[in-house]
Amino acid sequence: MSDHEPIQDVAHLGHVEILTPNPDASLAFFVDVLGMTEIARKGQSAYLRAWGDYDRCTLKLTESPQAGLGHVGWRAVSPPALERRATALKAYGHGQGWIEGDIGHGAAYQFVDPDGHPMEIYYESEKYQAPDGKRSKCINQQQCYDPRGAAVRRIDHVNLMCSNVTTNRMFLQETLGFKLREYLVPEDDGFEVGAWLSVTPLVHDIAYTHDLSGHKGRFHHVAYWLDSREDILRAADIFTEHGVFIEAGPAKHNVTQAFYLYLYEPGGNRVEIYSGGYLIFAPDWEPIRWDKVARGRGVYWGGTLPESFRTYGTPAVATRKPDEALVFDPS
Amino acid sequence: MSDHEPIQDVAHLGHVEILTPNPDASLAFFVDVLGMTEIARKGQSAYLRAWGDYDRCTLKLTESPQAGLGHVGWRAVSPPALERRATALKAYGHGQGWIEGDIGHGAAYQFVDPDGHPMEIYYESEKYQAPDGKRSKCINQQQCYDPRGAAVRRIDHVNLMCSNVTTNRMFLQETLGFKLREYLVPEDDGFEVGAWLSVTPLVHDIAYTHDLSGHKGRFHHVAYWLDSREDILRAADIFTEHGVFIEAGPAKHNVTQAFYLYLYEPGGNRVEIYSGGYLIFAPDWEPIRWDKVARGRGVYWGGTLPESFRTYGTPAVATRKPDEALVFDPS
Amino acid sequence: MSDHEPIQDVAHLGHVEILTPNPDASLAFFVDVLGMTEIARKGQSAYLRAWGDYDRCTLKLTESPQAGLGHVGWRAVSPPALERRATALKAYGHGQGWIEGDIGHGAAYQFVDPDGHPMEIYYESEKYQAPDGKRSKCINQQQCYDPRGAAVRRIDHVNLMCSNVTTNRMFLQETLGFKLREYLVPEDDGFEVGAWLSVTPLVHDIAYTHDLSGHKGRFHHVAYWLDSREDILRAADIFTEHGVFIEAGPAKHNVTQAFYLYLYEPGGNRVEIYSGGYLIFAPDWEPIRWDKVARGRGVYWGGTLPESFRTYGTPAVATRKPDEALVFDPS
Amino acid sequence: MSDHEPIQDVAHLGHVEILTPNPDASLAFFVDVLGMTEIARKGQSAYLRAWGDYDRCTLKLTESPQAGLGHVGWRAVSPPALERRATALKAYGHGQGWIEGDIGHGAAYQFVDPDGHPMEIYYESEKYQAPDGKRSKCINQQQCYDPRGAAVRRIDHVNLMCSNVTTNRMFLQETLGFKLREYLVPEDDGFEVGAWLSVTPLVHDIAYTHDLSGHKGRFHHVAYWLDSREDILRAADIFTEHGVFIEAGPAKHNVTQAFYLYLYEPGGNRVEIYSGGYLIFAPDWEPIRWDKVARGRGVYWGGTLPESFRTYGTPAVATRKPDEALVFDPS
Repeated sequence: MSDHEPIQDVAHLGHVEILTPNPDASLAFFVDVLGMTEIARKGQSAYLRAWGDYDRCTLKLTESPQAGLGHVGWRAVSPPALERRATALKAYGHGQGWIEGDIGHGAAYQFVDPDGHPMEIYYESEKYQAPDGKRSKCINQQQCYDPRGAAVRRIDHVNLMCSNVTTNRMFLQETLGFKLREYLVPEDDGFEVGAWLSVTPLVHDIAYTHDLSGHKGRFHHVAYWLDSREDILRAADIFTEHGVFIEAGPAKHNVTQAFYLYLYEPGGNRVEIYSGGYLIFAPDWEPIRWDKVARGRGVYWGGTLPESFRTYGTPAVATRKPDEALVFDPS
Repeated sequence: MSDHEPIQDVAHLGHVEILTPNPDASLAFFVDVLGMTEIARKGQSAYLRAWGDYDRCTLKLTESPQAGLGHVGWRAVSPPALERRATALKAYGHGQGWIEGDIGHGAAYQFVDPDGHPMEIYYESEKYQAPDGKRSKCINQQQCYDPRGAAVRRIDHVNLMCSNVTTNRMFLQETLGFKLREYLVPEDDGFEVGAWLSVTPLVHDIAYTHDLSGHKGRFHHVAYWLDSREDILRAADIFTEHGVFIEAGPAKHNVTQAFYLYLYEPGGNRVEIYSGGYLIFAPDWEPIRWDKVARGRGVYWGGTLPESFRTYGTPAVATRKPDEALVFDPS
Repeated sequence: MSDHEPIQDVAHLGHVEILTPNPDASLAFFVDVLGMTEIARKGQSAYLRAWGDYDRCTLKLTESPQAGLGHVGWRAVSPPALERRATALKAYGHGQGWIEGDIGHGAAYQFVDPDGHPMEIYYESEKYQAPDGKRSKCINQQQCYDPRGAAVRRIDHVNLMCSNVTTNRMFLQETLGFKLREYLVPEDDGFEVGAWLSVTPLVHDIAYTHDLSGHKGRFHHVAYWLDSREDILRAADIFTEHGVFIEAGPAKHNVTQAFYLYLYEPGGNRVEIYSGGYLIFAPDWEPIRWDKVARGRGVYWGGTLPESFRTYGTPAVATRKPDEALVFDPS
Repeated sequence: MSDHEPIQDVAHLGHVEILTPNPDASLAFFVDVLGMTEIARKGQSAYLRAWGDYDRCTLKLTESPQAGLGHVGWRAVSPPALERRATALKAYGHGQGWIEGDIGHGAAYQFVDPDGHPMEIYYESEKYQAPDGKRSKCINQQQCYDPRGAAVRRIDHVNLMCSNVTTNRMFLQETLGFKLREYLVPEDDGFEVGAWLSVTPLVHDIAYTHDLSGHKGRFHHVAYWLDSREDILRAADIFTEHGVFIEAGPAKHNVTQAFYLYLYEPGGNRVEIYSGGYLIFAPDWEPIRWDKVARGRGVYWGGTLPESFRTYGTPAVATRKPDEALVFDPS
């Protein structure tokens, strides 16, 4: 894909499926504590949305022996764009074929990134139609504001751990037209340990983080957006009272400039609530390269990210020395 | 331009030039009260930026016998995109030819919308390089946060008054690929009195408002973004203490869902400070049609918009009956 | 009571009883929309608290043919202080005698202010003991934060309409040791139309507003506190979606400096949600006198207070010309 | 002083004097970064105020060979109250005699607490009269909001390190009528390591913290108030860009419930910016006892307080093993 003549075939992050060994507690967490709404249930999966998602569903929660990523769904901008991307993915050798669709969306072409994270791309998407009692008085709003729990507004991004950040992000750039926004090369050896990419003006729709464990295909977190930092501070009270494990934050990233809080849901997966950051409208944005000096303490202010932030992912693995993340027991 | 195969040639709103009969007071307002930075001066113009603008300049303030719009500048996504749009504009019969550029940007193709508002499109843009003392410790931030006055962060959108909203917005849709996001048809006659359009996921980069005066080419407002509603409430204190005329807000729009405050700068032009709203990532967004019932009081909450909001623009004209806006004297 | 040797016998506003002809809807509003908790029911009354009230109950909601004030309860600092105040009230000729107490508090001495508003003073108060599931992990907090509806934190103040502001406030100053903090004398005739008084550093625990209707003993509003202006903006969304009538705000007062929103609960009584303002620690505070010039538009910024704010109270009376407030029908 | 018949002779914390070996840099910090205003200079001292202080001066900054506390000034409620407290202090054996006064206040009786921290009590206080250009349009506000740096609003409290918390707090309770609000007894031995006391409804006007170093009379911090947590987050950006050392926060205390940020000013003294918390109106408030279980991680959420928070004070002492606080070099 040419730099000067971008064809933007991918519209946005559509949904994320996460796996949980603790489905009842996970569902209760997403509904009662995070404030999402369950819109359907099928097989071993519950389908959820935030009040501001325009799609019917942005989170699929599936019972599984261990936690981790189910898959990531990307929405294409048009049917021809979907065809073009399926062709490109197949040509790249990462395609897995079409499925008929799922609750909330139509036919999807499935593929894996180099690390093996399952993904899919689709065009047909079901817009949420609020039932009576959930309709907003503001007709450009998909659902009335639902003041339950943290009341997250919409899906924001997904973060995946991988064995090689450069290989995985290049795959997304080459096959799906993602743009590299920021990347982290903390040592003189030039080894890339993090990359933030997007197809939208959001500073990232997806990030890759280097997995020190040597495993492949692990999940770092899914992030939901809140409109203000005050909302995140309010959520911190709610999480604390519910005994939710807050791993880091509330604090401010330097990468992405966002205000964040990381927690572990009862299935063991990390979830971020996120606000602020910045938008990239420049068509000639030059990726921001964070070296050791620029990175500093790893945050703009507000405490450092704990060691578990670099080592813990789902499924949890035992190749590391015991630390706070390892002893976490969501049961 | 096809619905299913969008070619996004326009990247974003680049800058706005406004005219002021009161240049010293206007400049002092934008620097000391709104918190912008003057980066250059040439002829009768001062060039300004907000601390979060990636471009070197987003506001050109030009001395003139009367207030109003100088021009609106749009940035293209690439040199070929610029050529394509210039060709399309010329074909449409609205082109005016190339200029060499201005402070902050390169060659631009000038044109007018049907109402006669001067516009231009360009690709080459000078990125802001912060001098010592203005550089941020956060390398993805163009400039350190400058806690002066309201400290607006970045340009957001422009709003133009026009004799026929439909004609003007169709022009932008057909020649530049703008997408209609929301529009206002308050009466049964189907007459469109407002339209909100964008090329980005922002709910509007530009809006058109019907000009009841019968005049053409008038200016409604330029809007600058602040990251939080708290920032806007803080700004209201600053404006009040400086004796700035606040026309409306702080309050919440239903159209765009944004939190707003409108003021008149000393030259008489309306300026909005703006936060919140929503982002549109859906490639198949269906424009929101506001009829009388949906529109309600014209705001989501927080007081109604005064009559002047529908009648006052710059240059000020005398075809209306005297009201608060007319007696406003910025001198 | 001497200026230089203040004896502070009244500790704070304890509770307010309001009357409602629409008890089910009123109760649903206070619980589901304002986010309070019902702790008891007795006779025709429901007893409510906000999550941050240290007392077991701060609002008593009583069924009645028409809306209005039931009574205002003040807590004394000690048993001797209670005795002293009862003696002073009796001597003043406004005492009505002792009652045994009510849910949440012990023996109370009842009295009326010159306008006839029922009041009482008591010392014994039942501290709230949160049941399992409502206890906070923070042991200095009476109850965990309850993210339901607007989630008001604590009672703040009460505002009463009266036929003569000066007479009524002098009564509170002379019998109960209230201090005058601010007062409003908008015309050259020196007639006082509003007074704000407190026994605490809050800028007011009670205010009196002149009743233009010629009636006595009417109720203007009770106010509940929220910790931030963001909380009030969030509440405005909730009220709008629930169809609650917002009479004024969100906006900022000049008197008290507070950020406010006024609404009518389903029984017709006005309720304020309130944040900000300032604290008065100066022992020699000189009451702020607002004349016409200082008062200006009547607010610091954010719209003007509507005519109904000066005329509407409960019980509603028909001596005024019809306006928005009069046509309000809470049924 | 009797529990049931409190005589409140002390009105509030009036001012704090801090010593700095780096006076120019300290002054620049308090004015440009914290946003205070210098109102006078005398000898080796600069006198400062926050925009919302009603007193003319709340901070005295004095050049000295080493950092630390100059003195703490308490305002009495009346001249007789001042006399009563001087008599009580003398009787207690801690009095040092009268001084004529200083910039901003009149005759003061000087004394020391058991740990030797210099204090004084006075009644006559000069109210701030804003000069032209600083006067607020809101006549109950001492000065217009000054959007410079963090723009702190008013002094809030002071925190002193001491060799024996119980002894020092009992002294304030017995001689000055302070009320114990919360205290920290983390171990089974019952040893008190922290106490929070006030004469106002603020949860503390002063706190004592156990000094592990074995030294006496050291200074922990002075705190200035900001109206919202957003203000503190905004300040964190400003501090970070100015290279100010942030020791802890932004985060939320469990003790006091407040939102905090601690920094070291260029002289080496710790300063807190502070918002939120709770007010105590109950006349029979039972002091909150924090044991190990209740205290938990030492914060409600947002990172733990670093070791330096328990060990670093001014003047810095060398009896501890080197840590982050010790290597801090403000020059």
